[in-house]
Amino acid sequence: MLDLAIVGGGPAGLTAGLYAARGGLKEVVVFEKVYPGGQIVSSSEIENYPGFNEIKSGIDFMDSWVPQAEKFGCVVKSGAGVTSVRKNNDIFTVILDDGQTYEAKAVVFAAGTKPRKAGFDGEDEFFGKGVGVCAVCDGFFYRKKEVAVIGGGDSAAEESYFLSQFCSKVYVLARSELKAAPHTIERLQNTPNVEIIANTQVLRAYGDKTGLTGVTYLKDDKEINLDVAGVFVFAGRTINSEAIKTDDGYICETDKSGKIVVDLKMRTSLAGFFAAGDIRIDAGNQVVCAAADGAVAAASAISYLHNLK
Amino acid sequence: MLDLAIVGGGPAGLTAGLYAARGGLKEVVVFEKVYPGGQIVSSSEIENYPGFNEIKSGIDFMDSWVPQAEKFGCVVKSGAGVTSVRKNNDIFTVILDDGQTYEAKAVVFAAGTKPRKAGFDGEDEFFGKGVGVCAVCDGFFYRKKEVAVIGGGDSAAEESYFLSQFCSKVYVLARSELKAAPHTIERLQNTPNVEIIANTQVLRAYGDKTGLTGVTYLKDDKEINLDVAGVFVFAGRTINSEAIKTDDGYICETDKSGKIVVDLKMRTSLAGFFAAGDIRIDAGNQVVCAAADGAVAAASAISYLHNLK
Repeated sequence: MLDLAIVGGGPAGLTAGLYAARGGLKEVVVFEKVYPGGQIVSSSEIENYPGFNEIKSGIDFMDSWVPQAEKFGCVVKSGAGVTSVRKNNDIFTVILDDGQTYEAKAVVFAAGTKPRKAGFDGEDEFFGKGVGVCAVCDGFFYRKKEVAVIGGGDSAAEESYFLSQFCSKVYVLARSELKAAPHTIERLQNTPNVEIIANTQVLRAYGDKTGLTGVTYLKDDKEINLDVAGVFVFAGRTINSEAIKTDDGYICETDKSGKIVVDLKMRTSLAGFFAAGDIRIDAGNQVVCAAADGAVAAASAISYLHNLK
Repeated sequence: MLDLAIVGGGPAGLTAGLYAARGGLKEVVVFEKVYPGGQIVSSSEIENYPGFNEIKSGIDFMDSWVPQAEKFGCVVKSGAGVTSVRKNNDIFTVILDDGQTYEAKAVVFAAGTKPRKAGFDGEDEFFGKGVGVCAVCDGFFYRKKEVAVIGGGDSAAEESYFLSQFCSKVYVLARSELKAAPHTIERLQNTPNVEIIANTQVLRAYGDKTGLTGVTYLKDDKEINLDVAGVFVFAGRTINSEAIKTDDGYICETDKSGKIVVDLKMRTSLAGFFAAGDIRIDAGNQVVCAAADGAVAAASAISYLHNLK
């Protein structure tokens, strides 16, 4: 029987493990589907994690997180995808994709989200080398440069405006007309360095060894090359909440998209079940925010377990 | 006119500055009463900040935070205590203790809290060298050692139980009987390695060059020496919310103690006024939590300012 099962080995899960083990819990296990580190490992540069005043790649940056958690007794299992989490009689049952089953007194769910792809050629090849999915994270690297945003929803429109504040030009490439809130669209239309190009299909990215240098899109049956330094894709996100899906919903309250509803202590509607990181509502979508969620969720789990006794 | 005034130069305020400036806001200023760094600079060791897998002193640890924020254009003013923050007609007025006045379109309030002292001799001398104020932060350094907790309220009782899970013995020194919740008291009483010593007065700490080695307390008019490796003081906290106090309350909603009520986006009841760090309700009281609050508050401030336009 585990004191705490943690689902997901990104910044949120690893920090929950660190704080839970250092806080005296026994048998704290992080289950990570692939390898630990989370989404950030695919990032080529990170310069905004507070206290790290040098640019590092995501993979270098996450290097120390597993040993730091392990130092306090947390166990990190890689290649351990969780397919189901259920609670019965105050005990959680966690089932892995290879059929192994664990019991736990409490669970921190930090399975994250995954950006959906727009589906153009070169999207993978140039990912992290010109193709990004987070303007707050990477926008600053394109200061005073021209960028393109692919997408036409609220996120695409809001992030385009965000980018317009420091990029020299922002092209918004949307499949149809923009579908964002009218106020957001109007604001974009009134921003001189934003150009909305509706009813387009992005075909491919091009570039050289240093990375992306532009994208080709189809408009009115014509292929057009657009030279830009960076491309941001906002095609929605997959919420990794399959493991907590039941026949008629989720094991705890979620919003429409499947993001977990939490309070400021990362408690969900299900006692003993805590959420952390991008999977919860109103997530900060930054490494430092996910890490803080993990610390808070661990503290709440410790408090919950103390009260069980 | 500042885009954003930030009150407090601890991890919350400095991260808010980093994210706000990097996110394209102009004229972002952090006002810090003394010198930047926050409470953590008085900590002798920090080992649980995610990603820093080596023990550092608080002051060394915070060394890089100011240059990191400044790199993106944030201005950090030391020795700039804020005495008043008020909002009129969508503009905030920030008044400093030397009378200087700034106007700002938005404010992040991250003035923190300050632990109250128990008032025994040596409390300052041994602070960070055996005397601590946060069990989650420093408890682990006393694993398998004997410690004393000074205090009799809910925090003292809860943190005593927390420490009992990995310290060999926890003495709880209370001025009267414990005043914590009955359930918490009962749990402590039933924990074999916890000894509650009520109706005591702690007179002084003693030690050697390496740090504290014990405390002397008065009980039934007798002075008793208690050899312990560490002492945790839980005598309450001063909430640094004077600057937002009005004649009949605060400029935004707070709880009874003066902590600022926030939502998951660090928004308060006053539009354009955001809170971050220990000063807000349900704060994590960890550096990583304060930093995340700062990042979230900055994102919310950016979004607020974009919508003003």
